[in-house]
Amino acid sequence: MLDHSLDRHLTALLFGPDKPGIVASVSNWIFNRGGNIRHADQHRDDAAGVFFQRLVWKPAETNEAESEGQDFAVFAREELGMSCNVSMDNEEQRVGIMVSKIDHCFHDIALRFRSGEFRGKAVVVVSNHPDLAEAAASYGLPFHCVPVTKANKAEAEREQIRLLQEAGVSLVVMARYMQVLSEDFLSNIGCPVINIHHSFLPAFAGGRPYHQAYDRGVKLIGATAHFATADLDEGPIIAQDVARVTHRHGPENLVRRGRDLEKAVFAQAIRWQLEHRILVYHNKTVVFD
Amino acid sequence: MLDHSLDRHLTALLFGPDKPGIVASVSNWIFNRGGNIRHADQHRDDAAGVFFQRLVWKPAETNEAESEGQDFAVFAREELGMSCNVSMDNEEQRVGIMVSKIDHCFHDIALRFRSGEFRGKAVVVVSNHPDLAEAAASYGLPFHCVPVTKANKAEAEREQIRLLQEAGVSLVVMARYMQVLSEDFLSNIGCPVINIHHSFLPAFAGGRPYHQAYDRGVKLIGATAHFATADLDEGPIIAQDVARVTHRHGPENLVRRGRDLEKAVFAQAIRWQLEHRILVYHNKTVVFD
Amino acid sequence: MLDHSLDRHLTALLFGPDKPGIVASVSNWIFNRGGNIRHADQHRDDAAGVFFQRLVWKPAETNEAESEGQDFAVFAREELGMSCNVSMDNEEQRVGIMVSKIDHCFHDIALRFRSGEFRGKAVVVVSNHPDLAEAAASYGLPFHCVPVTKANKAEAEREQIRLLQEAGVSLVVMARYMQVLSEDFLSNIGCPVINIHHSFLPAFAGGRPYHQAYDRGVKLIGATAHFATADLDEGPIIAQDVARVTHRHGPENLVRRGRDLEKAVFAQAIRWQLEHRILVYHNKTVVFD
Amino acid sequence: MLDHSLDRHLTALLFGPDKPGIVASVSNWIFNRGGNIRHADQHRDDAAGVFFQRLVWKPAETNEAESEGQDFAVFAREELGMSCNVSMDNEEQRVGIMVSKIDHCFHDIALRFRSGEFRGKAVVVVSNHPDLAEAAASYGLPFHCVPVTKANKAEAEREQIRLLQEAGVSLVVMARYMQVLSEDFLSNIGCPVINIHHSFLPAFAGGRPYHQAYDRGVKLIGATAHFATADLDEGPIIAQDVARVTHRHGPENLVRRGRDLEKAVFAQAIRWQLEHRILVYHNKTVVFD
Repeated sequence: MLDHSLDRHLTALLFGPDKPGIVASVSNWIFNRGGNIRHADQHRDDAAGVFFQRLVWKPAETNEAESEGQDFAVFAREELGMSCNVSMDNEEQRVGIMVSKIDHCFHDIALRFRSGEFRGKAVVVVSNHPDLAEAAASYGLPFHCVPVTKANKAEAEREQIRLLQEAGVSLVVMARYMQVLSEDFLSNIGCPVINIHHSFLPAFAGGRPYHQAYDRGVKLIGATAHFATADLDEGPIIAQDVARVTHRHGPENLVRRGRDLEKAVFAQAIRWQLEHRILVYHNKTVVFD
Repeated sequence: MLDHSLDRHLTALLFGPDKPGIVASVSNWIFNRGGNIRHADQHRDDAAGVFFQRLVWKPAETNEAESEGQDFAVFAREELGMSCNVSMDNEEQRVGIMVSKIDHCFHDIALRFRSGEFRGKAVVVVSNHPDLAEAAASYGLPFHCVPVTKANKAEAEREQIRLLQEAGVSLVVMARYMQVLSEDFLSNIGCPVINIHHSFLPAFAGGRPYHQAYDRGVKLIGATAHFATADLDEGPIIAQDVARVTHRHGPENLVRRGRDLEKAVFAQAIRWQLEHRILVYHNKTVVFD
Repeated sequence: MLDHSLDRHLTALLFGPDKPGIVASVSNWIFNRGGNIRHADQHRDDAAGVFFQRLVWKPAETNEAESEGQDFAVFAREELGMSCNVSMDNEEQRVGIMVSKIDHCFHDIALRFRSGEFRGKAVVVVSNHPDLAEAAASYGLPFHCVPVTKANKAEAEREQIRLLQEAGVSLVVMARYMQVLSEDFLSNIGCPVINIHHSFLPAFAGGRPYHQAYDRGVKLIGATAHFATADLDEGPIIAQDVARVTHRHGPENLVRRGRDLEKAVFAQAIRWQLEHRILVYHNKTVVFD
Repeated sequence: MLDHSLDRHLTALLFGPDKPGIVASVSNWIFNRGGNIRHADQHRDDAAGVFFQRLVWKPAETNEAESEGQDFAVFAREELGMSCNVSMDNEEQRVGIMVSKIDHCFHDIALRFRSGEFRGKAVVVVSNHPDLAEAAASYGLPFHCVPVTKANKAEAEREQIRLLQEAGVSLVVMARYMQVLSEDFLSNIGCPVINIHHSFLPAFAGGRPYHQAYDRGVKLIGATAHFATADLDEGPIIAQDVARVTHRHGPENLVRRGRDLEKAVFAQAIRWQLEHRILVYHNKTVVFD
């Protein structure tokens, strides 16, 4: 939900080599410009010697927020040697949704976008099948069908990228999109891509995970939201959850129960990303919840 | 806890090819001898065509319970073609505990045995290290140290089997026993063996699972109780649970959090086994909870 | 989902005074008519001396299923002295939905009905506000607005009953319907009514439960699905779940997190009811899951 | 566990009226003395206008840690107008345990103290019954039995306070101590008192909560750790958890399942308190986990 108490606020995500005085340097920089820090979360990975921070602050009334954000990023990079991203909380984030035929995750997030639960806006739906055209229309979302075959995959992905970038997306979410995105797609799309996998990764990577889970006789099934990377199902994990199952649940029951898990975990990951709460390093995530 | 309302009750676990009329045949057999069925749980694996049942009944006052149980088993095998085990609820089950150096699971179940929470009795502790001798003594439990090396493993296992069988155990539980039991041990011990693995299997099988989990960046850690089989960490799963972790939890934190999971899951599996609630087939379990 | 493997199956829910031989009598009755019991769950409340059973069976091909069901009910009532309901699994259950303005539970169950996840059909929406007319239309559901004021409540409820009964409902679900149904309504509607309350009952009964929870500083929030009775929030509990919250979650966050709980718990209760899994006695439920 | 990487670290807990620049002032104060902030968690209660912070820092090698801590507290109080407590992470915290007859929570925390899981030391056990004398001895803990009757309660409490204070405790934990502590006790003991209540408060306050839960037919049972206050079961909640139950669980089963919840929740609360993670205000807690 667009939190209007956050108007004119800036959010910075930064990380880099740990050293004494970082917390003080950062808070001083803001304080000296008349800003007021609303939230500040830190984390240290002591083994790796890496420092992480999420900062939310309100610049002085007399300062122009956008340029203060740019100045801060320069400061963090050049004086602290950190990676840094700064975003303005009133800037509209545009989200592209990729789907195939399975629709529960699509409906779930489309309803959440429409109700204002996410700090962002769904702007386009891209699919490799025509099935969800009507569903997309019912939410007022432009829908593009780009069939993907083995033969045309590279070309199809270029078209998908064109459609998503034309819509100005800063986040792509795969709502049970049943194709593997190529390394090319991921390096050219220019924004993060979040996928929902229907198992508790790393267990049951690959296809038909509920059937794999049934065959192994596990007592819990899971779902995992992660950033898509070229290594299928190996990207940084953002959120996971599980549900209890028994011998009474056949594969179809696991699929049904799993749908609720997938929706909840996927929405959680999207919410965190749109609120600038996630940092990625070493193929893992730091989530400042 | 020994439930005295169950005195003179019999519990049968049976499974085999499904066919019409099984439920009626079984309940008739008992009813015609004046018995009263207290609980009856069924399950059908429709894909495999297998029928499972757990029955608890009280024979007529005039009948000798033990021989009625034996008669029932013969009936189930010969007339219904089912595998069948019948146990008397007032028979004492004797449990052997295998440990190494890590003690939290040992203390946890020793206290549960002592408080009467389990329907059985701990009777012997066998270890490959001397460390827990005093702890075992504090619970009044005989403790045997049988060091295991690569060279003496076969001989050591024969000695372990001798000690466990001498104590008359009908169940062996591995309370973080840090050695793989050989196929020889498992086929000669003559009773089920329950192991606790410190991960959500099949994720992170093998050694140092909490470190594996940390490296992969999962958001939930787990524990799995399973029957030990010759394939390490591949036996039928009995119980599993998970706990939420974040980037703030280093490997040591995962170990600490995991301890509580291991205790709860291990105790759950032991309780179910001692209450004759578990059937194994196709490397999976049916748990009549 | 309509499980076609259940075609021609009958489901009986029965309960009454416990006595020896019930299980055998019941299974014999079915077996003697050539029927095959697919599932049979029993429960005994030993303290209250009450026996409960859910039976699913397939009558012989030569028998007419509906009349066998009626015969069974007569047998259970007259010969066993039990309360008994028998339903045919291929009979269509019609569900009426009551709503006000809040729409997340409505959308959630409407999508589940549409996807075939429930063994039943949503047939009518009745509201005290016009707000969700368009949403109902998007699912092809007839929508009736019956404004309710203090002055017209009795009359409005009569009109609601008329609309629901005209639609032939055998279940009414209150998808965050924000009016208390009177004792008159509940005794005249002629079918069960399921409500979703947005707290872990009995904690925080009454209005604004998330604000109550925030003020008390609880670390978990909950949702409860229960049968509506004349005592507000005091009816038999069907399903409950909770989610973890921290000091960082203000009342608005609790409301948002709670929405996901409400949807899941409400859907669970509706699913169980439509699958004839719930028995009510002593203001509690027995759920044969 | 005593974390030796924290040697010479200071932990401050502070809260008070929110105002711009607090984060910068605090981090500057530390940085200017050569200290290095390891962790800094903040929270704002926007509605109440209150700022909360937990800080962990390592003073410069040349500074005396204890006096830097005292100086910081003076600074926080006088210059920032905050409440502030500073503790040294290598100072030994001494914990007094109050018990009656029920022993599962006692054994659980005694084992955790012995294994070094808590950042503190159990130093004395005070009971109103002699039953756990031997158990206390097995952990090497001094045990004092002070019988409490209606007639002698005031006097008995004075004796309890004397024993606890003589042992130098800075925390008292009620491990299922089955007496209400009077307002007098709580205002004179001079340190926090943590109680474990065997329900999900505020549901089922008062006596026999598992039986209350059974009678109401809830589908989840809970446990709550809270600071003891003069209002029974109304103190600030620190930790809560729940477990799923069904109609098959009688009151005795709820008691057994509840024991595991109580142990986990109680241990969690004690761990947080000993790690200086809990701030109390408005009868609620802020837990910097």
